[in-house]
Amino acid sequence: MIIIFSPQASEEQIQHVVERVEGLGLRVHLSRGTYRTIIGVIGDESLLQAAPLEAVPGVERVVPVLPPYKLASIEAHPEPSVVDVAGVKIGGGHLALIAGPCAVESYERMDRIGAAVRAAGANLLRGGAFKPRTSPYSFQGLGEEGLKILREVGRKYGLPVVTEVMDPRQVELVDRYTDMFQIGARNMQNFNLLTEVGQTRKAVLLKRGMSATVKDLLLSAEYILSEGNPSVVLCERGVRGFDPAVRNLFDVAAVPLCKSLSHLPIVVDPSHATGRPQLIPACALAGVAAGADGVHVEVHDCPEQALSDGDQALLPQQFAELASQIRRLAELLGKQISQPLGAPA
Amino acid sequence: MIIIFSPQASEEQIQHVVERVEGLGLRVHLSRGTYRTIIGVIGDESLLQAAPLEAVPGVERVVPVLPPYKLASIEAHPEPSVVDVAGVKIGGGHLALIAGPCAVESYERMDRIGAAVRAAGANLLRGGAFKPRTSPYSFQGLGEEGLKILREVGRKYGLPVVTEVMDPRQVELVDRYTDMFQIGARNMQNFNLLTEVGQTRKAVLLKRGMSATVKDLLLSAEYILSEGNPSVVLCERGVRGFDPAVRNLFDVAAVPLCKSLSHLPIVVDPSHATGRPQLIPACALAGVAAGADGVHVEVHDCPEQALSDGDQALLPQQFAELASQIRRLAELLGKQISQPLGAPA
Amino acid sequence: MIIIFSPQASEEQIQHVVERVEGLGLRVHLSRGTYRTIIGVIGDESLLQAAPLEAVPGVERVVPVLPPYKLASIEAHPEPSVVDVAGVKIGGGHLALIAGPCAVESYERMDRIGAAVRAAGANLLRGGAFKPRTSPYSFQGLGEEGLKILREVGRKYGLPVVTEVMDPRQVELVDRYTDMFQIGARNMQNFNLLTEVGQTRKAVLLKRGMSATVKDLLLSAEYILSEGNPSVVLCERGVRGFDPAVRNLFDVAAVPLCKSLSHLPIVVDPSHATGRPQLIPACALAGVAAGADGVHVEVHDCPEQALSDGDQALLPQQFAELASQIRRLAELLGKQISQPLGAPA
Amino acid sequence: MIIIFSPQASEEQIQHVVERVEGLGLRVHLSRGTYRTIIGVIGDESLLQAAPLEAVPGVERVVPVLPPYKLASIEAHPEPSVVDVAGVKIGGGHLALIAGPCAVESYERMDRIGAAVRAAGANLLRGGAFKPRTSPYSFQGLGEEGLKILREVGRKYGLPVVTEVMDPRQVELVDRYTDMFQIGARNMQNFNLLTEVGQTRKAVLLKRGMSATVKDLLLSAEYILSEGNPSVVLCERGVRGFDPAVRNLFDVAAVPLCKSLSHLPIVVDPSHATGRPQLIPACALAGVAAGADGVHVEVHDCPEQALSDGDQALLPQQFAELASQIRRLAELLGKQISQPLGAPA
Repeated sequence: MIIIFSPQASEEQIQHVVERVEGLGLRVHLSRGTYRTIIGVIGDESLLQAAPLEAVPGVERVVPVLPPYKLASIEAHPEPSVVDVAGVKIGGGHLALIAGPCAVESYERMDRIGAAVRAAGANLLRGGAFKPRTSPYSFQGLGEEGLKILREVGRKYGLPVVTEVMDPRQVELVDRYTDMFQIGARNMQNFNLLTEVGQTRKAVLLKRGMSATVKDLLLSAEYILSEGNPSVVLCERGVRGFDPAVRNLFDVAAVPLCKSLSHLPIVVDPSHATGRPQLIPACALAGVAAGADGVHVEVHDCPEQALSDGDQALLPQQFAELASQIRRLAELLGKQISQPLGAPA
Repeated sequence: MIIIFSPQASEEQIQHVVERVEGLGLRVHLSRGTYRTIIGVIGDESLLQAAPLEAVPGVERVVPVLPPYKLASIEAHPEPSVVDVAGVKIGGGHLALIAGPCAVESYERMDRIGAAVRAAGANLLRGGAFKPRTSPYSFQGLGEEGLKILREVGRKYGLPVVTEVMDPRQVELVDRYTDMFQIGARNMQNFNLLTEVGQTRKAVLLKRGMSATVKDLLLSAEYILSEGNPSVVLCERGVRGFDPAVRNLFDVAAVPLCKSLSHLPIVVDPSHATGRPQLIPACALAGVAAGADGVHVEVHDCPEQALSDGDQALLPQQFAELASQIRRLAELLGKQISQPLGAPA
Repeated sequence: MIIIFSPQASEEQIQHVVERVEGLGLRVHLSRGTYRTIIGVIGDESLLQAAPLEAVPGVERVVPVLPPYKLASIEAHPEPSVVDVAGVKIGGGHLALIAGPCAVESYERMDRIGAAVRAAGANLLRGGAFKPRTSPYSFQGLGEEGLKILREVGRKYGLPVVTEVMDPRQVELVDRYTDMFQIGARNMQNFNLLTEVGQTRKAVLLKRGMSATVKDLLLSAEYILSEGNPSVVLCERGVRGFDPAVRNLFDVAAVPLCKSLSHLPIVVDPSHATGRPQLIPACALAGVAAGADGVHVEVHDCPEQALSDGDQALLPQQFAELASQIRRLAELLGKQISQPLGAPA
Repeated sequence: MIIIFSPQASEEQIQHVVERVEGLGLRVHLSRGTYRTIIGVIGDESLLQAAPLEAVPGVERVVPVLPPYKLASIEAHPEPSVVDVAGVKIGGGHLALIAGPCAVESYERMDRIGAAVRAAGANLLRGGAFKPRTSPYSFQGLGEEGLKILREVGRKYGLPVVTEVMDPRQVELVDRYTDMFQIGARNMQNFNLLTEVGQTRKAVLLKRGMSATVKDLLLSAEYILSEGNPSVVLCERGVRGFDPAVRNLFDVAAVPLCKSLSHLPIVVDPSHATGRPQLIPACALAGVAAGADGVHVEVHDCPEQALSDGDQALLPQQFAELASQIRRLAELLGKQISQPLGAPA
């Protein structure tokens, strides 16, 4: 940590800071410039994280030197992590192909979509039973009934399943049915929920919040990791942008940026990132080319009847075509698409 | 709702949409232009909200005509709402002056700050017992112990209190100690939490999320209102911006915008909006001049020792000066600062 | 300037940097921490501005300590500057009330609007003769004919005039007719244009670019100042935001932020900032309450017939009401609205 | 165009609008809903573009139906355009590989870099002679001397050249030396400059502004096209974002979005988009995978000595490796990298 004093800082103010820092058992390295005095702090910087030194009179700026996350950092774990979801590997050269409808709507529809995405080559099945909806008047999901349908269809087609959990009180229930928890973008900083899934030993798909920096995302992953659950997969799904032509702004550079800072796998979700079916395939391929460990795509067999977010789903045949392009790209990049253990129906 | 077809839409596709809309009991008004066909839907538009018409082949765009929130809308309640927090009025010409530390740290400190803000003219006392922190390694609040301290200090100085609730499981506990719930920016779309506080009959201070539009904010208020709790006060606290010189971008235009769309009171929080003490007074005054129903300011008697967000607090004497400026501005604008019922210590 | 090395930096890499910095005649202060080595550079930091040290192997980050602008900085000129526009003062307690149509459309209309804004208390008359329009098919302004009309109407009502210049080739022409140049948001980083108006001795109204930080704005001002023209007035007119409910995001905190960094006056433009007439008065008052040195408002006597941006103009009677509110607020704040020297018609 | 009236609109107000629209020779289609009245305008919508109907009393919103650009639209030209730059094709399956230093610094350096990028497979050579710099104290380019060096090196290695033009007064000069004009992000809405290059018959590389929507970008292209110059290549180079970890936010979805709206080729510039060398290769590949017609990468043989933006350049060997990955990806996608006509040195 570096502490930069303002040109007007008095000798007394500087000494006051030196004493506070040394009082925490750290050493200081004082550097008096032509215009300003600067302190370099030597020792465990995290001791200073709770101390708001920028509020001390005479201090102009404080520059942290270490990343505030530890377990998520690449320094802590230089090899890429591989997360195992009921036998399907994600990371370290293994791509996830996560597909399914936004919401579980009925057994029949889930069954048709499950069959289609399995045939197209998906290795994980998604579907929402609890839906975070902007409006209280929108469809909120089938709840436990939806979880049962998802579980059953997953089993039928030999696909591990992933579904969103929105409330710490639901973690136990969802845990009974799913192979992987999804934490949605709106809950990326629902810290009690992160703590709760951190206390399970089940993989977590952690979506980036709409206005979260990559550092924020890694700190949210740190909440889960620090509870003892090492199986976190990050997901870039677009951030708020200013162009009304797309729903969100797909931040593909977050993929190599995460790779440079963390060992955790990261997948991309072009469905939420763009909100427009005609842009999804291009963005999915962009994500894989940028080094993502998989894609997460919404698939629906009749988007116009979808009870939730039908506007951003691909049709099964569109998904099949995309999956085939991803396979060819994966081959070029020397990556594999891990096959689910279960036998398909 | 208006449905705009693409120039390539076939007659069959248009008829398909007409049938779907009429099937919901609505009437359509077909308009065939030189380039495109357009449908105006006549009847209760909310029936169409769940139907993703943009996914229907041939449809290019769907333009909603009505706001998706109802109870929060100014159409539903043309007069400004006045929210009563244990006798302190907010809205309809009454200003809230909410002050206190970011986090409750100890009885002694809370007592000193409580005395100071009461003397300066605050009419509501704030303090966090449960703190949403970006990092798992930061101070997370004193929990119930903090609630007790806040309650006791509020009683001593005759000030109603407001404190954050982060988890639906904490609502009952927090309810026992507080006069007003705060929903933080990170939880503005924690819909289960909104539903839970909506089922109480206690006032709610609902902070705008960092990337929430004003429409999103009003829809989150609608979650609370639709559960039967009418006492919602909105709070503008800055949105994500690109200039690193400030923590957030204080969106003062959201104040008159909310006033034009909704009857709910709205206060501003320049502490979180700017994150820099020297900008707080100017932004607080800007908010009141723009029509806000109050300000929410963090006050700490020794920011450099604050366990959380000390960087953005005013010192008691700075707050006293600001409060005096706000009073003069309020007078100019013909507004009142409602006095708490309790006798000060 | 502080140079932070990565944990992997070799001794050789560190020495390489030390030599480069010392080679520029600067002194270094080396600080070896537990994890990293840090260099504090002592001497004239601007010598290092052109040297991309972040590209040197082993360097992780470079943190500048001094602001990159000099003449615009408050350190260079601790007292607020007062800009004089043909007798009308802006800054240092003097408010500008700049009003007029977006574009000059005809003598008759300009005459009516000029009479109205003069009667309402404006002290500067605006009107565009060269219009930067997003579409090549939109009205582009009357050119020199528009300048003549503006000049004549300004003279008739005793109001100095301000008008936009878009092209370095137009500076001489515009200079013949105007009392103050306007540099529009789209041209804030048209550096050749800045240089050109910097070589005149006429006041410049410099609008902030839609995605410019305050530092960028001050650097653009520095272009003008460094050519010898000291009369720059900054203008906050909203930045790109994500909420489609407003045209731009009015960044009122930029007002006190500029005041803390620079001596230059700053006015606000709520017309462009919001793009919605019903939000303009509230944002104008917010700007003045936040410490702005004036407001810039578009006024049109028949917005629906305006050839350009009629959507964001106030009607003359709305402007008169706003001007009266601004006068009362100015009085409360102890500020004056400088009267133009010319006798009104 | 659709005109939506407010619920309070009077019959008189509606009739007033009907008359204005019909007065322009258009037909109206009136639709009276339960809550609101709506008008669909039939005929040439562009007649209404200059009429600010949103300012008419009673009108709530106006929804355009047609894109405001014509020549740039895919409707005007359903086949992808192929732009020819001195024999190198861009678009329609042909990829551009544009490489070179940010600024031309000296003949020797330009020669070394030219040789290196030619050997690595670039088909266009870039280098700035006029540099738009945020600070007036930064290196501003070598001017005509730089143009001569670029021209000479381009000729030596058989590579067509592209260089930035910043000022309408420079167009003639730059035209004498370059094969393609570059319009930088800061000048995307310098409309007089667009008009000037539109009057030449030389290809233009038009970079997206930092806060420009894709619609804005296409309208700026329209300025050039409408002057008679059909050879425009768009360039996505990142937009303003909120994460300080990257310089800009690389909007890869703009690539398929442009393709869905326009026939113009589009390349990506991951150097400016990320500002960090370690993220450039991943983002370049992402762009090509998303369908871009080429990449634009800064290459420097000693970034730490670069006079301008050295921080974002690749080393020649890094570029060679990236070029080889792009070639393999192009092959997979069935695209070609057009070879320059000139014989290499």
